[in-house]
Amino acid sequence: MNKRTPTPGNSISLVIKYPQNGGVLSEIIGTIEKNNGSLGPIYIVESERVTVTREFAINLVSPEDAEPMCEALKKIEGVEVLEGWDRVFEAHAGGKIDVVAKAPLEDFDDLSMAYTPGVARVCKAVEADPKKAFEFTIRQNTVAVITDGTAVLGLGDIGATAGLPVMEGKAVLFKEFAGVNAFPICVNTKDPDELVKICASIAGTFGGINLEDISSPRCFQVERELQKLVDIPVFHDDQHGTATVASAAFLNALKVSGKKPENMRLVVSGAGASAMACTRAISDLGIGDVVLCDRKGAISLSRPGIEENEPKYWAARNFNKENLTGSLKDVLKGADMFLGLSAPNMLTGEDIRTMNEKPIVFAMANPTPEVWPEECYGYASVVATGRSDYPNQINNVLCFPGLFKGLLEAGAKQVTREMQAAAARAIADCVDEPTAENIMPSAFDPRVAEAVSEAVKKCALDENVSKTPIFFEFGK
Amino acid sequence: MNKRTPTPGNSISLVIKYPQNGGVLSEIIGTIEKNNGSLGPIYIVESERVTVTREFAINLVSPEDAEPMCEALKKIEGVEVLEGWDRVFEAHAGGKIDVVAKAPLEDFDDLSMAYTPGVARVCKAVEADPKKAFEFTIRQNTVAVITDGTAVLGLGDIGATAGLPVMEGKAVLFKEFAGVNAFPICVNTKDPDELVKICASIAGTFGGINLEDISSPRCFQVERELQKLVDIPVFHDDQHGTATVASAAFLNALKVSGKKPENMRLVVSGAGASAMACTRAISDLGIGDVVLCDRKGAISLSRPGIEENEPKYWAARNFNKENLTGSLKDVLKGADMFLGLSAPNMLTGEDIRTMNEKPIVFAMANPTPEVWPEECYGYASVVATGRSDYPNQINNVLCFPGLFKGLLEAGAKQVTREMQAAAARAIADCVDEPTAENIMPSAFDPRVAEAVSEAVKKCALDENVSKTPIFFEFGK
Repeated sequence: MNKRTPTPGNSISLVIKYPQNGGVLSEIIGTIEKNNGSLGPIYIVESERVTVTREFAINLVSPEDAEPMCEALKKIEGVEVLEGWDRVFEAHAGGKIDVVAKAPLEDFDDLSMAYTPGVARVCKAVEADPKKAFEFTIRQNTVAVITDGTAVLGLGDIGATAGLPVMEGKAVLFKEFAGVNAFPICVNTKDPDELVKICASIAGTFGGINLEDISSPRCFQVERELQKLVDIPVFHDDQHGTATVASAAFLNALKVSGKKPENMRLVVSGAGASAMACTRAISDLGIGDVVLCDRKGAISLSRPGIEENEPKYWAARNFNKENLTGSLKDVLKGADMFLGLSAPNMLTGEDIRTMNEKPIVFAMANPTPEVWPEECYGYASVVATGRSDYPNQINNVLCFPGLFKGLLEAGAKQVTREMQAAAARAIADCVDEPTAENIMPSAFDPRVAEAVSEAVKKCALDENVSKTPIFFEFGK
Repeated sequence: MNKRTPTPGNSISLVIKYPQNGGVLSEIIGTIEKNNGSLGPIYIVESERVTVTREFAINLVSPEDAEPMCEALKKIEGVEVLEGWDRVFEAHAGGKIDVVAKAPLEDFDDLSMAYTPGVARVCKAVEADPKKAFEFTIRQNTVAVITDGTAVLGLGDIGATAGLPVMEGKAVLFKEFAGVNAFPICVNTKDPDELVKICASIAGTFGGINLEDISSPRCFQVERELQKLVDIPVFHDDQHGTATVASAAFLNALKVSGKKPENMRLVVSGAGASAMACTRAISDLGIGDVVLCDRKGAISLSRPGIEENEPKYWAARNFNKENLTGSLKDVLKGADMFLGLSAPNMLTGEDIRTMNEKPIVFAMANPTPEVWPEECYGYASVVATGRSDYPNQINNVLCFPGLFKGLLEAGAKQVTREMQAAAARAIADCVDEPTAENIMPSAFDPRVAEAVSEAVKKCALDENVSKTPIFFEFGK
């Protein structure tokens, strides 16, 4: 299956001058389409007596397609390609966030209140009662988005600063979806203990810490040890954000498929941090059993040397009750649900047809899923992916902005598994009537962040809700 | 001399309901004035048939004056004080800065360009060429404002987070005066080596580092060692910002007084970091000699044990050529200029009259200067302070926003003493015709940041300008 789809992630602009008449515009557009380009907005730059100049925004399959496209365009009679640029790099020029004053400084009175001498009284108030920082400083509403650059997107260990464009993007999402201030901090260290120490040292500026793109298994240690040192919530989004949104999808998939969770067997492909977190979160919602598979197949207590890998040993002890062994495809047979957080094209439609009837399939590898939805349709009851161009996108942005908003408003000191379950339910409940093609709210549905925030805040403030920290303690 | 002046730093609002007629308003205002209140804006909250409710913004000498003032107001026939609050704390509620997206996220195309999948290409470009971070991330235009909270304003070691309101204020000034993004980082450590390490680890997010409110002598070490580790400019504003603005004031004071710098003797009261930096910067502008005084008097090579204090030993070796000894008042006799960065009320008008004729007096202790300007007028040719309510305010905000703007635009890797001198000249040149009461541009003069930025940028890009780092190396 050829899934080479043009994407706005590979968007360019071309400024093209061409003759007004003679059907040249349709020839230009035809040439763009023939070269795998998908057209976005088309602007008029200049209109003269016999020529027009327009800017064409074009999504490509790959940036490499730009050059042959331009060459083909230049061959059209009378056509000139005047200029061209990469729209994605243009969108990142100079960074994607600004730090602005909440109120303007117009005169010495403003200066005396916001800065010296007035600010001294605020400093003294915070010194006398550190809790006041959550009232009179940005701690009230500001999250640090911290990475060490060791696992940026699917790119691996590209280094701290190379991860900055992602962290800035995250800060944009925090603001746009929940009004939360977020600031990126890229920490140039590969030592988890040092990362913990550095994060703890600078935590006093923030009301929460969103850990991001930290490789496994160091991410487990960093989150746990940091949370023990600071009195603000720490949340590794790649783990728990993914798990929360997958849990929401699971809740609505249950409604569509009619399956009872306690009777279900879930097979997970992938044994990284997010797979661990998804497994635990869905298990918290009452699923019968889960079998995690890594490249070697099912993780079970029978595997020689399993004790040596702390997370996998933990998974083997807590899940796979029937101690299944064999390959992913082996254990998939008869399973009720598949959840992939692993690699592209692991499965085909035939594999899906070995599952129990009407299975639930979440194929979340990005951008190419473990199995294409088209291959599952007709047998699976629900199919979800991480992509925005298929129904049922499992997108972390449904969780973290609202989650942190709720945490900050409640003055929470940590994130709990109960909050995670509450957030998952809140997301799921934003879909009024789940159907096979509509189990998830849109990332742009403004109700979601509000609902998640309220649910998390309520959970944080409710004394009767237990407070199990969200970080993993594999020894327990 | 009683200098208990009401200040917007102690500003309150009172909401008062009173009878429309009978001259009550003037009685209210009279009562406010009698209680040392100075009135700011007066708003109408509600106007009814027989009563009016207004909000009065009132500057106080001290926050403690609020209660007796309210008691006195309540005694006026028919007057009710409905509400009252502290306007300074109100101005700090929830913090003073916001982190915002430069462009809105309105649909999946925006999301795909600013975030995944598009952002991956930007990350890879930065990984391949780290300089690209200065083009496509916030490193291009973002400064870290870093403190360890050890010397916040005049409050001493109040701790990292208690310094946050000042650092936020600084971020506001960066943005409002020069369009530079700045973000506060409060580092909870007292160990200078650790502070250096932490700052270096997070430097990859920023294009420059403004160190702030770090106690002496650790500030010298932190600035120097950090600058050696990072490839972005590091600038301790309390030292060099103060020194740059004082240098600008010095240049224009020369024009007013007609003194020749090479013939001048400057006496400095204070031997902290900013005094050291001012001494060196003014010395760089060609002054004849400087005598620094600490609490024990003139710092000279004759002082027993002088070798044990590295900065003071350095000062004794480099200045005080005549090896003067004695108290501040002793060495002030016959001096041409006084510069105070020490403590309130160190000198009287009589002391100033022992100086050489038409002396220049910069009394910069805050809020109470070393000597009140009124006591100097009539003998001194120029008097400057750190206060906004006297002529000739020496205010750091004239330097750091424009300085960093220039550094960032030039892609400078460090701050040099040549840039400092260029910035000082640029600030001085913003005053068209210096007079005794007008040697400094206003903090709100929009030309200043532009002029400083251009001067610094030019200096940074000019290959022929030498590059002496601004940090102190006392051993040299």
